[in-house]
Order: sequence, then structure tokens, then C-alpha cells
Amino acid sequence: MRPKPFAPIPASLPATVPFIGPETLQRRRGAAFDARLGANENGFGPSPAAIAAMRDEAARVWQYGDSTSHDLRHALADHHAVPAESVTVGEGIDGLLGNLARLMIDRGDVAVTSDGAYPTFNYHVAGFGGALHKVPYRDDAEDLDALSAAARNRGARLVYLANPDNPMGSWHQGPAIRAMLDDLPDSALLILDEAYIEFAPDSAIPQIAADDPRVIRMRTFSKAYGLAGARIGYAIGHPDLIDGFERIRNHFGVNRMAQAGALAALRDSAWLSDIRHQVGKARDRLAAIAAANGMTALPSATNFVAVDTGRDGAFSRRLVAALERQGVFVRMPGVPPLDRCIRISCAPAPELDILAEALPRALAGL
Amino acid sequence: MRPKPFAPIPASLPATVPFIGPETLQRRRGAAFDARLGANENGFGPSPAAIAAMRDEAARVWQYGDSTSHDLRHALADHHAVPAESVTVGEGIDGLLGNLARLMIDRGDVAVTSDGAYPTFNYHVAGFGGALHKVPYRDDAEDLDALSAAARNRGARLVYLANPDNPMGSWHQGPAIRAMLDDLPDSALLILDEAYIEFAPDSAIPQIAADDPRVIRMRTFSKAYGLAGARIGYAIGHPDLIDGFERIRNHFGVNRMAQAGALAALRDSAWLSDIRHQVGKARDRLAAIAAANGMTALPSATNFVAVDTGRDGAFSRRLVAALERQGVFVRMPGVPPLDRCIRISCAPAPELDILAEALPRALAGL
Repeated sequence: MRPKPFAPIPASLPATVPFIGPETLQRRRGAAFDARLGANENGFGPSPAAIAAMRDEAARVWQYGDSTSHDLRHALADHHAVPAESVTVGEGIDGLLGNLARLMIDRGDVAVTSDGAYPTFNYHVAGFGGALHKVPYRDDAEDLDALSAAARNRGARLVYLANPDNPMGSWHQGPAIRAMLDDLPDSALLILDEAYIEFAPDSAIPQIAADDPRVIRMRTFSKAYGLAGARIGYAIGHPDLIDGFERIRNHFGVNRMAQAGALAALRDSAWLSDIRHQVGKARDRLAAIAAANGMTALPSATNFVAVDTGRDGAFSRRLVAALERQGVFVRMPGVPPLDRCIRISCAPAPELDILAEALPRALAGL
Repeated sequence: MRPKPFAPIPASLPATVPFIGPETLQRRRGAAFDARLGANENGFGPSPAAIAAMRDEAARVWQYGDSTSHDLRHALADHHAVPAESVTVGEGIDGLLGNLARLMIDRGDVAVTSDGAYPTFNYHVAGFGGALHKVPYRDDAEDLDALSAAARNRGARLVYLANPDNPMGSWHQGPAIRAMLDDLPDSALLILDEAYIEFAPDSAIPQIAADDPRVIRMRTFSKAYGLAGARIGYAIGHPDLIDGFERIRNHFGVNRMAQAGALAALRDSAWLSDIRHQVGKARDRLAAIAAANGMTALPSATNFVAVDTGRDGAFSRRLVAALERQGVFVRMPGVPPLDRCIRISCAPAPELDILAEALPRALAGL
């Protein structure tokens, strides 16, 4: 007997994964990586207070987590000076993007994004039967005018913009993003993915009212706060939009330890400042390593650096593979002309030392 | 300006929650519960090895979890003597049910369940536009014949059966469930929710081949393994069905500490045996407390007991509210005639002592 057929939308989808995880790559190569620089994780780690809070909460892990993430949600509301009704907590931005796609996308609805931008957004849009329309990057940055023009021309329901951008590390100033909102058609909701915003200059943060119905902002504890493995993030938007998540989300889905860890991490602003400082130093070091190898680090407002190899995507792909053989995990953009770059995460000095040794060897072998 | 309209299915849904969590109830009453006996959590707690593993893994929480849950998945495959391709790990049974509903349910597709059974299944089916058909319990147990007959009559795509059952604690023998599979129409996939199976006699476990395409089994670390707050469970089914989850799941959605904790919990079979023993004693104690108050505990193969008040749903509702005022959190079935009962979770003796004191006071006040 064969299994029952899937419903039409999943039946039309491939089995896929937006990213192959480093653990899978390690199993394939039969050895652990010496430097884990490919997933934009924060190797400087979370606040010790966050680790302590999670370890403490482990004693209560027999209890389900608070289904409303009440304490964290209210702390986030205070932190951003927005009403708690404008904040929802979810299983990382990936989880929030999935729920948002489900809330907004009916079969055939159009979502606009940049060609080469975050693949997990594309995965979720396709997963609900949406039609993706992609516009090219311009000068290694997401093209605000092209995104809003495409949204108008296609009657888009969703427009995705990461600021700062992943995978290029480029960023726009807040006022430019505010201006973009005015250019969007009435049909469209802007998803402003601010996963890396804590690494960006303040001027990159647009002043947007929490109840502006044209935009939903997404933030995470995975990057600057160093809690990627805890799976916790949040969205800020109009209360009626935020309330929509209550119709579909997995109410008890946020890990209890993650809630405690995120709350402690949010409160440790000194640690966050130090992380910013360390990441800034690591960016400089990555730029120096790139230059020492005849390559150019692009400016970055994130915890990673896109390094321009000066060659094409085929070269970058060979370089990423060669680095993997040297025990260094990095990734690269998926489409030209971005794929002339490789993407390297900021990390503590010992890992960058390993990179500094491995990179010339990898290049020499190509 | 108003927010953008939702897609048709979510637009038609209410903002709802299958359960109001105990933290929300505590905030409403302005005080913590003295005894938390309402969510079928395992107050005896997880294996100390699981807590130690999670605390240890907290040091690596800056890394995303393994997107394939490789080590846990393979350990589960060994544990159940099934191929790893028949196992998928997800964010608890709640998360797995949501993904399964999404895989199988198109607008208007029928799902059959029992009236009064697990509301989160209903939530997910409605959430993907499915049509629920409910059949009554018979003798406080899910009615296998009625479920399969309804599936045939309605051309159901999904049939939900929890064995043992929640909220009644009743159970069927394995051979009866195997026989039910032969009665299902070709259209239907049986979801066998075995969240409580570790508390049941071995004879309640049906012998079903891992690649039987008529059924998917769901298991969790939330109950016997005591890891409710970690949000981790798994499903066993035909490899092609299991592979379908790869099309839609949140690949990096399972918390890194949860994976480590679940693996350690699975390996500590001695702890699981002891939990079974403690839960058995607590069930007996709950039966004695019920009897001492003129009520009757129904037989249970779970870590909770449905206590028949001998009255109606209105009485039970008042009793649940009165217990809440006494600081004791319990729940009750949602529909007649099941709602003549209240549902009390097994717990360590100090919490049952509190119940034993509070129950006569609560009853006296009605």
C-alpha cells in the first residue's frame, strides 16, 4: 500500500531545506569543524545571566512554558516603548515568518523579495502556495525602489526586506525605509526583518509607529543575544495583525528555558554592548584576513562579512568547499553577482586564527 | 489605516487558544497555584541526566540545533526498532499535529475525532480549513467503531485517536486498534496519539509496522519523560509520509537543549520505570482522595485521573473554579457526559496532600 496523498499545496512542494546545517555537513565529512563561521551564530555567546537563567529554569522544565510569554512580551514592550499588544513571541524569526506567510498568503498571492535574500522566507511563501517575485540587488544592497515598484506592479501581499541585509551585510538608513512604506501599494505588508539590527548604526533603525499597519518588524535572540539554539524571536506590529497570530500559532510552542534565557539576555545591556564591540573587532579582523589574501571585505552592519573574491560564483563555491576540507565552515550567497562573495561569520579570535591559517591554504589548492 | 486583510482561511478563524495556560490563570487570580494538577505535566520531573544534559548544552546554545535532530532520531529508531527514515522529530505533538494537518488537509477536507477529545487537534484542522466531524465517546472511551464508520461515511482524510485517551484516561487494547485500521477507508490516515502510552499496559500498544501507510503514531517527551517545557516530540510512520514533513517543517525549529535533554531522558530507562511506579501510586492516592469525598476515580492508563463527580457539567465547572480559589489547578472535559468529571494530574505527595485538604473545602462551598 502507498501512503495517502498529500493536500494539493504540499503535494506540489519538493522536500527541501533552506539551509543544510553544519552538523549535517560534519557528518558528511566525518569530522567536526575547527571553525564554525557559516551560520552567523554568535560565538561570543549569550549573556552569562541568560545561561544561568536557562540552567535554573531546567529544574522547572517539566512545566509547559507560559503560552503567552507574558513576562518576556511585557519586557520587550517596555524595551521598545510599544504596547504589549503590538508584540508576539515565537520560535525564532523562521517560525514567525512561517506563521505570517500562513496569515497573509492564499494560493497564488504574490510575495516580493530580493533575488539572493533569505531563502527561508521563500520557503514559507512557497509552502503556502504563494508566488514569489524577485528583484535584483543593486550595488550589493536590497533595492528599495525596485522592491516597492515590483510590489505595485504585481499587487504583492508581502514584501520582504532584511535591514541589515543577509547575505551581503549592507544596510539602509531608517528614513529610506520609512519613505519606502509610502511607496508600497495598499495590498502590501512589509516584513522588515531586523535580525541583525543590534549590530547596525542607530541611523539604520526606522522610526515607525508600533501600530503602523503597513509593516511588521521581526527581531530575534539568535544573533546579537547569542541564543540561536533556544529558538526564540518576536514581531512588532499593529495589534490587529499581532492578534492574528493567536488564530494559528502553536500556543505552547516556545520553550520554557528559552523564555527565561531571552528575558535575562534582554536585561543585560552591558553584555550586548560588549558583544557589539567584539563583533566590530572581528569584522575588522575579517577584513584584514581578506585583504591579506587579495580579497575585499564589503562593509557590514551585521555579525558577518561578505568577502568579495574578485572572481565568479564557481570560484566561490570551490573556495567554500576547500575551506570545508580545511575544517572551516562558511557559506556563500546563492545567486550572481552576489555569489562572487563568500560569507564569513564574526567569531572569537581563536576561530579567526584558524581561518587566517586555512584561507591561504584553501586558495592555494584551487 | 487598517491592517491588511488576512488570507481567507485565517480570516475565517477566531483568535483562540486550545487551552488557557496555568500562568495566565495565576495572573488572573493574582497568586501562584499551590498545586499544579491541571496540565498533565509530570511533577516527578525528568531524569536528572536529562536536566544535566540540558544545563551542559546551555553552554552551546549560541549554536542552532541540529536541523535533522540526527542523534535523537537515530536513538529513537533504535529504541523502537524502526528505520530512522520512519521517524521525524518536532516541537512536541502539538507542533507535529499542526504540520500533519497542513500536509493532509485541504479546504473542506474532513477530519474525524471524538467529541471532547484533544482540542489542539481540532484547532489545527480548523486552522487549515478542514471540516471536523465528531463522534461521541462510548462508556467514557473513544469509540473505535464509530470513528471508523464516520471516516467511511464522510470520506475522512484524517482520523484522530488518542490511546490512552485524554481527558478520560481510558484505553484500548492494541489488537482492537489494529483491527480498526482494517475498517478505515482508503482515504483516511489514522493519527494514533500515544502521548500517554508509557503509562499504559504493554497490551495497549498495537503491533504496527513502521511503514504501514494507514497510520502515523505520535509520541512526546512532555509526559512520562517530564520535558513538557522543552517542546519536543516525534512521529513514526511510512518513510514517504515522514519525508513529507521535510516540505513544510521549520527545519531549525527544535531547541538545541531539548534535543540533548530528550536523548538523555530516552537513555535513562531506570528513571522511566520509577516514574511509572510513582505515577501508579499517585493514581491510587487520587482514587482514595476521590472516594473520601464521595466521588469515583475512573480507571486510568495515564498520569491523570478523571474523577466522576456524580453530578453534571455545571457542578464540575463550579468545582474546578472552587479548587482554583483554593490554589489548586485542575481541568475538566469540555462536553457532556464527560464533563461530569474533573481531570486531576498525578503529582508528588505534597501536592496531593494540598488537594486532599482543598477538595472537601471546595465541595463544602458549593
